[in-house]
Amino acid sequence: MRSEKLSLSGVCGAIIDTGVFDLVEQARDGRPRAVARLISLVEDDSPHLRSVAAALSPLTGRARVLGLTGPPGVGKSTSTSMLVSAFRARGLRVGVLAIDPSSPFSGGALLGDRIRMHSHTVDPGVYIRSMATRGALGGLATATPQAVRVLDAAGFDVVLIETVGVGQSEVDIVALADTTVVLLAPGMGDGIQAAKAGILEVADVFVVNKADRDGADATVRDLKHAMSLGRRELGPSWRQPIVRTVASAGEGVEELVDALDAHRDWLVSHGELEVRRVRRAEREIEAIAVTALRARLGSVHGGEALSRLAKQVAAGETDPYAAADQLTETL
Amino acid sequence: MRSEKLSLSGVCGAIIDTGVFDLVEQARDGRPRAVARLISLVEDDSPHLRSVAAALSPLTGRARVLGLTGPPGVGKSTSTSMLVSAFRARGLRVGVLAIDPSSPFSGGALLGDRIRMHSHTVDPGVYIRSMATRGALGGLATATPQAVRVLDAAGFDVVLIETVGVGQSEVDIVALADTTVVLLAPGMGDGIQAAKAGILEVADVFVVNKADRDGADATVRDLKHAMSLGRRELGPSWRQPIVRTVASAGEGVEELVDALDAHRDWLVSHGELEVRRVRRAEREIEAIAVTALRARLGSVHGGEALSRLAKQVAAGETDPYAAADQLTETL
Repeated sequence: MRSEKLSLSGVCGAIIDTGVFDLVEQARDGRPRAVARLISLVEDDSPHLRSVAAALSPLTGRARVLGLTGPPGVGKSTSTSMLVSAFRARGLRVGVLAIDPSSPFSGGALLGDRIRMHSHTVDPGVYIRSMATRGALGGLATATPQAVRVLDAAGFDVVLIETVGVGQSEVDIVALADTTVVLLAPGMGDGIQAAKAGILEVADVFVVNKADRDGADATVRDLKHAMSLGRRELGPSWRQPIVRTVASAGEGVEELVDALDAHRDWLVSHGELEVRRVRRAEREIEAIAVTALRARLGSVHGGEALSRLAKQVAAGETDPYAAADQLTETL
Repeated sequence: MRSEKLSLSGVCGAIIDTGVFDLVEQARDGRPRAVARLISLVEDDSPHLRSVAAALSPLTGRARVLGLTGPPGVGKSTSTSMLVSAFRARGLRVGVLAIDPSSPFSGGALLGDRIRMHSHTVDPGVYIRSMATRGALGGLATATPQAVRVLDAAGFDVVLIETVGVGQSEVDIVALADTTVVLLAPGMGDGIQAAKAGILEVADVFVVNKADRDGADATVRDLKHAMSLGRRELGPSWRQPIVRTVASAGEGVEELVDALDAHRDWLVSHGELEVRRVRRAEREIEAIAVTALRARLGSVHGGEALSRLAKQVAAGETDPYAAADQLTETL
């Protein structure tokens, strides 16, 4: 296997011959270009995807996987940057996956984030990757856990998934983490709006950022009220802490890291870490299988079957369930 | 077919014998309970789902389907209410589907929305339904278009899909509409944050709500700037208008309705309406087929196959792609 030659055509516009295992070894040596190539290979659904996945598998399971989410404008990028600094101060290597909803207006990667994260880009102990939701449904649901595997196998101690947006698909991605941090901020709308975002129930740790602003007390109060109404299945004994931060000034970072450590200890001591990782693997397998089946549906009879059935449905000649039955029967 | 008896057990807690066609006819007569039952039948994946879908199909295709989305706190519910009033003033029947991300803190349906929409609930020309994202992935992607079909077949002139959240799955749902309205408001974060929301590219009409507030001019300016950077595939000649409203005071509603009418005219005169409806049908068929296939994956070998494979992946004994291949092979 070690001598297997791999043609990385289409990555970085160059054709490079190297073995998958060499690439993985280079990534473990801390070479960012090797990490970048591996992520591109798993992200782009390349022909080498399966051999990369197989090579990574025995090397995974060591990294702490953290998720960070919240509504737009709460300061997720700044908080990520603050956390990266804190982990670096402990001598830990940190990989960041910043999930951006695709937008033709921004081209996927956002200048603002890049600028905010710039201080870390010259640090070899930090790897930052933007991942866009371009392409089909389920693209990120498949690509993100594979990118986590790459960073894990490459020896990053912490993998931080930051996602903008508050939608179900983003929540699902962040829920893949061992520990999920939900950020709120004063003045982002009332408690009902926060509940609407559908993110309260995935939180292991709450952060009220911009805690120096008017309304921070009210946000903490609303949050406590919402939590008191909830009946989240938390398993035994974990109570979501609320940490106040001012990420732009680095305030509250120690409290936040303490809360993350406390949750980590709880996960391990209650056997929850294993439960979560098996659940994550289930979702990964399912996402890959569904993507494969979806691709097969789209290509039934050269892709013409779906289009023909859709025209019949739009014309009221058949209904979408009968059409779907016809489509799946041909698989 | 007309004499087909249908046992509506589990709906409204009662067992009612009636034919699917009778139910559809009652819905067309404007009876809200019949509409509610039909939506429950398509939403709950009941055994009668297929006969309901078949009965609705020839009656669909007349309603205008409008989507309304935007980040939390921009005033979507208030804007929906304003639009409902405007359409009612023209004598049109309006169905509203309010998509709520599920939350154990709110129980799915939100008191705030209910209160805001209350003035319409006594109007027989208006039907309002909250749909929650509870349950599996893809649940709403399947259920929402079916609910649109019910309202369309029941003779509602306008079907308005309102969705909170800014995530990809919500955007996908709203993108099912003939015309999609994206709401923004001053002070919801800068232009970059708006672009992050990933909703700019799905807009046919932009609304800057709360236009009486400080920062409305800046929001319009940021939006124009973002649009100038975009390269949206708009097809021929449609230029997204930006309408300013103060929904809480009903200001700007005429301009908004004019913009919606102009887009409707454009859709029809450019053949785009048919294109969008065929695309919508394609996504509907695909969502139904994928849901069916996903269910089959979960039930392979009594559901134990996925769980066993996930444990192997979590332990690093196999990789998720190899596991997914094993799972789909058994289908």
